[in-house]
Amino acid sequence: MSLHDEIVQIGTDSLAASRELNLLTASKKNSILMAMADELDSSKPKIIEANKKDIEEAHNAGLSDAMIDRLTLNDVRIDGIIKGLREIADLKDPIGERISRWIRPNGLEIAKIRVPIGVIGIIYESRPNVTADTASLCIKTGNAIILRGGKEAINSNKAIAIALIKGGESKGLPKNAIQLIQTTDREAVRELVQLEGIVDLVIPRGGETLIRAVTELARVPVIKHYKGICHTYVDESADLEMALRIAINAKCQRPGVCNSMETILVHEKIAEEFLPRMAEAMSERNVELRGDEATRKILEDINEATEEDWHEEYLDLILAVRIVASTKEAVEHINKYGSGHSDAIIAENETAQKTFTQEVDSASLYINASTRFTDGGEFGMGAEIGVSTDKLHARGPMGLEELTSYKYIVVGQGQIRE
Amino acid sequence: MSLHDEIVQIGTDSLAASRELNLLTASKKNSILMAMADELDSSKPKIIEANKKDIEEAHNAGLSDAMIDRLTLNDVRIDGIIKGLREIADLKDPIGERISRWIRPNGLEIAKIRVPIGVIGIIYESRPNVTADTASLCIKTGNAIILRGGKEAINSNKAIAIALIKGGESKGLPKNAIQLIQTTDREAVRELVQLEGIVDLVIPRGGETLIRAVTELARVPVIKHYKGICHTYVDESADLEMALRIAINAKCQRPGVCNSMETILVHEKIAEEFLPRMAEAMSERNVELRGDEATRKILEDINEATEEDWHEEYLDLILAVRIVASTKEAVEHINKYGSGHSDAIIAENETAQKTFTQEVDSASLYINASTRFTDGGEFGMGAEIGVSTDKLHARGPMGLEELTSYKYIVVGQGQIRE
Repeated sequence: MSLHDEIVQIGTDSLAASRELNLLTASKKNSILMAMADELDSSKPKIIEANKKDIEEAHNAGLSDAMIDRLTLNDVRIDGIIKGLREIADLKDPIGERISRWIRPNGLEIAKIRVPIGVIGIIYESRPNVTADTASLCIKTGNAIILRGGKEAINSNKAIAIALIKGGESKGLPKNAIQLIQTTDREAVRELVQLEGIVDLVIPRGGETLIRAVTELARVPVIKHYKGICHTYVDESADLEMALRIAINAKCQRPGVCNSMETILVHEKIAEEFLPRMAEAMSERNVELRGDEATRKILEDINEATEEDWHEEYLDLILAVRIVASTKEAVEHINKYGSGHSDAIIAENETAQKTFTQEVDSASLYINASTRFTDGGEFGMGAEIGVSTDKLHARGPMGLEELTSYKYIVVGQGQIRE
Repeated sequence: MSLHDEIVQIGTDSLAASRELNLLTASKKNSILMAMADELDSSKPKIIEANKKDIEEAHNAGLSDAMIDRLTLNDVRIDGIIKGLREIADLKDPIGERISRWIRPNGLEIAKIRVPIGVIGIIYESRPNVTADTASLCIKTGNAIILRGGKEAINSNKAIAIALIKGGESKGLPKNAIQLIQTTDREAVRELVQLEGIVDLVIPRGGETLIRAVTELARVPVIKHYKGICHTYVDESADLEMALRIAINAKCQRPGVCNSMETILVHEKIAEEFLPRMAEAMSERNVELRGDEATRKILEDINEATEEDWHEEYLDLILAVRIVASTKEAVEHINKYGSGHSDAIIAENETAQKTFTQEVDSASLYINASTRFTDGGEFGMGAEIGVSTDKLHARGPMGLEELTSYKYIVVGQGQIRE
């Protein structure tokens, strides 16, 4: 079978499975999820063995320690995956919810009902936990899932998928509801993202290069986020103690993630008071500061921030610093250089707060809180399939609801259009 | 300036305009819309003159009468456009609506607020009314619009756009909020739909060829509907009088539109009673029937329906007829051959109704009513920018709400993530 035919077959099988998934009750889906978790538990030795093979090959291929760490599974990490699955089973099922209902003057009753999207493709890199996390979110919401993981994790992903399918099918998971693309041929991605009329949505998860490649090839809808260039703006009306605490949290608590701060904007009126205190606190935490000209008049020994720095997602202990003359100037900077992910204002002044939240064009805007809260769990969604910096369908943290579509059911008594 | 640079400039200007549009109040936007309507009214002679030029060129180019009819503007048609604009001004503004709000255990208050999408590109064919209809819907929802109309209507579109902009700007419409791409170079479409980070959404409106071409080229999100292959299923429990009335309406009231019926599925138990009556009524209305083998045993003198017929959007007085043994078989036929647009069941039996509406994977499902009601106006949305057969972001008739996105505004008191 050609690669094209193979991927079309996977897609067609997935579509058939999605029709069956659509008919499962919430309790049925939950018992499937619990059985998937149980089977992962009893398959731990096999999964760890498969993972060792991947790690060995990664060492041979000379992958970085950071990549090997992302790839590595152990008892604790698998327990975390299992816990996640059981938590998803406990969440409320959004499918079947009546979103709204109204009656037209001609008597037609229109109801908008939440339904599964259908067939979802997930394209991801080295973290094998994504296999289980995304599969469980899709099954919970009645979607069939086609997984395409990274080549470097293929053995781990296969072992996890086998366990999920075995466990799930023991409780009635439809055949082909979860499929993992077995070939590591890169062309498979192209075939998958062009399956119009079969695949309803593709979610790429990983680095910017992967996401750009998927977007470029895709003919089916894609939801993504390229990067998180998050800002904190410290207004002249800010509580500076609070600003300091939030800045440290946003930069240092976990610098390698998308909702950490990359640039801080400081109002000129409080810069002389705030910047030296911030510089001291950041220096204690080994953060390198890079400042614009005005900042470097106050913090004389820091490096220069160039145009490139404003565009940069450091994902590291580096922070760009800029002094602005007004909230408007902060807004303009963020709208020009930001990634539409998460941005915060620290201010007591309500006009400044309002200008900032209305005019900054980002998914999540914070008043007096850390950008680190942009996360499905922290938002109370219970689970997260990703964070979207797109504006269509889903924006910001994506939980279960964002994995659904809707249909209209119109009940009449013989109405015809005049 | 190269074509690429030209389109990038249009996009960048549009993005800047969208920031200003985002700040306009509902009443401001409404006074802009009213001024646009007024200016259209006083520009009627100019618009009709420009339209005459397009029609003349269309005749020279040998375009069909149907195409020339779609292209033609006259006093009555322009009055219809003006009326539409004023009606849109009267609708409730969805922007700023608080969709939901909740408080987290740590005290963070999260609000989900409806906002404009940003920059919307509309790519369309010969109907010049689309210029005004889509521009007014976008301005109402605070979106900047880039219009790319068909070459054959370029003079009409220019005249309409000039009037809209002149009228709007007299009441504070931001510069470049409405832009019409002036070149008729086809490459402009490619450039437009690849403006990632600038154009947030593209809506192609027109024939399937146009829509496929746009989808293939696009790197920005696209919402579309390819075609409307709508079905009516007459169950064994149907009120046959009602079924007949609805079938006639769905097929004949306006056969050339996407929500008209193309195929009727009839339960075998009532086929002998229903089909001859239907055939008589359809024959009186000059509808050609094409049937499967079982149908042709009852209606001996009709043509055969081939596999191609089930896939066909006739948009004409032709109806494919098939006998099925069950609701399940009707569902399977529709999911296989339908376009996910609108499908109806005529049945008194509630189990059949439920199976049908749950299992048919279409945007709008009707129980005992005509598929012709799939329309923003008929649904009570007040206006319609199109009908989506996609499942992401918007499905079914798209009104004002479907032209919006949302953002999260999170209010804290200094919260940091532990």
